Amino acid sequence: MYGLDNLPFGAAEGRLWVRYGDGALDLSAAAARGAVDERLAASTLNPFLAGGRPLWTSTRAALRKLEFTNLTPVDELSMTLPFEVADYVDFYSSEQHAINASRILRPNSPGITPNWKHLPIGYHGRSGSVVVSGTDIVRPHGQWRDPDGVPEYGPTRRLDVECEVGFVVGVPSDGPVPTAAFREHVFGVVLLNDWSARDIQAWEMAPLGPFLGKSFATSISPWVVPLDALEAARITAPAQDPPVLPYLRDDRTGYDLRLTLEVNGTVLTRPPFHQMYWTAAQQLAHMTVNGANVRTGDLYASGTVSGSDPDELGCLLELYRNTRYLADGDTVTISATAPGPDGSVIGLGEVSGTIRPAR
Amino acid sequence: MYGLDNLPFGAAEGRLWVRYGDGALDLSAAAARGAVDERLAASTLNPFLAGGRPLWTSTRAALRKLEFTNLTPVDELSMTLPFEVADYVDFYSSEQHAINASRILRPNSPGITPNWKHLPIGYHGRSGSVVVSGTDIVRPHGQWRDPDGVPEYGPTRRLDVECEVGFVVGVPSDGPVPTAAFREHVFGVVLLNDWSARDIQAWEMAPLGPFLGKSFATSISPWVVPLDALEAARITAPAQDPPVLPYLRDDRTGYDLRLTLEVNGTVLTRPPFHQMYWTAAQQLAHMTVNGANVRTGDLYASGTVSGSDPDELGCLLELYRNTRYLADGDTVTISATAPGPDGSVIGLGEVSGTIRPAR
Repeated sequence: MYGLDNLPFGAAEGRLWVRYGDGALDLSAAAARGAVDERLAASTLNPFLAGGRPLWTSTRAALRKLEFTNLTPVDELSMTLPFEVADYVDFYSSEQHAINASRILRPNSPGITPNWKHLPIGYHGRSGSVVVSGTDIVRPHGQWRDPDGVPEYGPTRRLDVECEVGFVVGVPSDGPVPTAAFREHVFGVVLLNDWSARDIQAWEMAPLGPFLGKSFATSISPWVVPLDALEAARITAPAQDPPVLPYLRDDRTGYDLRLTLEVNGTVLTRPPFHQMYWTAAQQLAHMTVNGANVRTGDLYASGTVSGSDPDELGCLLELYRNTRYLADGDTVTISATAPGPDGSVIGLGEVSGTIRPAR
Repeated sequence: MYGLDNLPFGAAEGRLWVRYGDGALDLSAAAARGAVDERLAASTLNPFLAGGRPLWTSTRAALRKLEFTNLTPVDELSMTLPFEVADYVDFYSSEQHAINASRILRPNSPGITPNWKHLPIGYHGRSGSVVVSGTDIVRPHGQWRDPDGVPEYGPTRRLDVECEVGFVVGVPSDGPVPTAAFREHVFGVVLLNDWSARDIQAWEMAPLGPFLGKSFATSISPWVVPLDALEAARITAPAQDPPVLPYLRDDRTGYDLRLTLEVNGTVLTRPPFHQMYWTAAQQLAHMTVNGANVRTGDLYASGTVSGSDPDELGCLLELYRNTRYLADGDTVTISATAPGPDGSVIGLGEVSGTIRPAR
């Protein structure tokens, strides 16, 4: 899970670490003795992320030659956010999720919107409330409509999870990033829980989209897994029909990431990332086609990962069709693995959070 | 316009400045000789903003005692972003704009959405593409639908402006900010042009809101005018009917800011900020009611300011009813003034940008 083929990066105790097995190597110490680049002697990954693929590649080679001795047990580390989040964008790229969400939340609408197969729908989320796994989630207050249409205020009654995969941008761009340049800009992936208050979201989102229903917290896993660790997990993403515009054409590289959602230790669902309709390369190309720059530390998420089977749905809204949500005290954990080389398994770690009562 | 009752702050040449008349005082130099707090010896306002109201008040008092001699002409300064933008939120708080936009963009909808008078509708925008006045705006590419419903790609044909006022957060919060605490957190205001590509926006925004139609650029004026300079501009904001929920109740303090939009030197409209339905205090209270934190450098904008008269509309969409937009080479300037003490006038400066052809 966390051998030499993985080597994910994290931050704790004001320093960076690389994970090996159940331990972690102090990268500040490694940098001090010249074993790795000095940009890893930092409290966040941002300087390393900005270094780009040549640095990422040379560092990976250097790390694979190290002796992983004198490791700190990962259980003893208080992980912090591995990078400073610049802009955070959340997509909506699972066809099954879009179909299900439309049916459940907008039963009077004609279903999936006409634009959905022509562009990866997304919106900007709140960077400042991205938190690391293990951070408690306080049940948010907000406003919604009661069944008679009267606005009410109080703690959300429909607190949900969304199982997602986040992509971490390393190299900035000053304009469009073609799909073929995806790996030059994106360093790696995290697991992401886009906590959602469905009652607040439903009432607020016309016409400008989700806002308070999502902005209270977004949790990410502490270990950023490099794309280089996911080479064996590359698969062919679903064919797209109708054909997309030229700027969105890509080589259909998807990633076979196998997510698991547990609540209080019980597995509820196993969302399959390989079914995502829009790839991360397409999302980045779309996000920048208007000239918008990306910055080191930009984070963009896949949207809820839902598969076609009932036990592959990526949120409680879909699993319980808007009838059952999280209770105070619930602990939610999303974990994932991916195929590694020669039949091995790459661990993507986990993103976890416990619901605390509204204040 | 820029006397001792104003004293706005800006950044240029890697230093901070305070404007007086047509000149500016170097605050790094002033800090070096002990005349102002050392947090003003910085390249951005963020450390000063984080200092909070006691620092803002003592600094204002100190500045008013200085001799404004040996000033650098503002025309000789290359202004940069006055602060590092953390999260950027854009509201939609002019009733007239919401009515007009609904009618023009969604003619088959029932008009203003049912939530609009119950909460200040808003969404997160892109922090990384906030630019300072004077930055050229390259016509963005994007995707829209032709009249037959077929997706097309190319440079936007409907490039618009939105005349807005932005509020700059100084003091972070770790939870809800009551309306009464607005002045403890917000330092001042800028003018803001929320450039919008209406064709791109119209096609993409169902169901998650504006994304690429807005994210290519947002321009702000270089001089941040302190709220303290706008005491004489405080007026009573419009009464709200139906009554709002308790967390949104406020003292109805609005600001009598008088905006002017010019294209190529011709005045097109004079949007009146005092008509805004939702106040900046309500926006901040709403934005944080779910527990979302605000950070130093957060920027939130009013939404397009449109008045009830035809010559008070805040964007070309409304002024020309979706028939006429910006051409390459057009220079757009939003400026504003406010009443100052004893019949004087406070200048809010201007935010300007010239449209360059698509690349």
